[in-house]
Amino acid sequence: MSNLEAMSPDPSQPADSASTSPAGLAADPPDPGAADPAAIASGAAANDTIFGRILRGEIPCDAVYADDLCLAFRDVNPQAPVHVLVIPREALVNLGDAGRQHRELLGHLLLVAAKVARQEGLEGWRTVINSGAEAGQTVFHLHVHVIGGRPLSWPPG
Amino acid sequence: MSNLEAMSPDPSQPADSASTSPAGLAADPPDPGAADPAAIASGAAANDTIFGRILRGEIPCDAVYADDLCLAFRDVNPQAPVHVLVIPREALVNLGDAGRQHRELLGHLLLVAAKVARQEGLEGWRTVINSGAEAGQTVFHLHVHVIGGRPLSWPPG
Repeated sequence: MSNLEAMSPDPSQPADSASTSPAGLAADPPDPGAADPAAIASGAAANDTIFGRILRGEIPCDAVYADDLCLAFRDVNPQAPVHVLVIPREALVNLGDAGRQHRELLGHLLLVAAKVARQEGLEGWRTVINSGAEAGQTVFHLHVHVIGGRPLSWPPG
Repeated sequence: MSNLEAMSPDPSQPADSASTSPAGLAADPPDPGAADPAAIASGAAANDTIFGRILRGEIPCDAVYADDLCLAFRDVNPQAPVHVLVIPREALVNLGDAGRQHRELLGHLLLVAAKVARQEGLEGWRTVINSGAEAGQTVFHLHVHVIGGRPLSWPPG
């Protein structure tokens, strides 16, 4: 679809303060005031995960895409020739922590996953989200795995 | 989040004609007039996949959730104690076929995946979307796998 070039959030739509905060890839100082009270209540206090630190620029990453809502970077333990993580800037824990107000953000993450896959030259790719330790989630900041570049077997884990 | 109970589309938002067509779980006659021209142009002509036939009630399924935008039913080849597919009523092929206009729909599918996982009693679950034959996609109608109820290994395929 040609309109994938325009992936920034629709300015006519209201957005959460956290998801529109101007946190960039550079070493911006952390802004505790931008934390989402709902996320804090649900356990992602001050976004204190390794991905929160990456978002704040405290830890470097190999970024492949960034916008106001999300960041995409290469997994440090890649499971395939292409293995990218797409994470929201908002400190959602996982899909179990998401509500209706996150619908557009979640959709955006999947569209960015597709954009990154194309950018990496993939014709086919698998997107995976682990929600909960029982599913293999190890960093409790929502992330979409984008995996491709080799044959992918079934079942998916 | 308590607002997950209210997952129907926001009536104040415009929606595609196909996504709000009243296709139900019962054996509704197929309605070619409801097909989305964009989906036809992109290759999902007349939604002629097994999932299209399920959506039109031509093939039965073990449904676990349905609303105006999507249908969730058990995979006929389950890879875990819980293995549900969430599919949009609109005939999207996969994430490569999705554009910005599908952002809310895609987010909705992930929220429904979480709703179904909770409904099935899962504390952790994996959501997987295969986009393209190279990734293992076999039915070319977008579907979100919701998998849980056993330990899930890594990598995911």
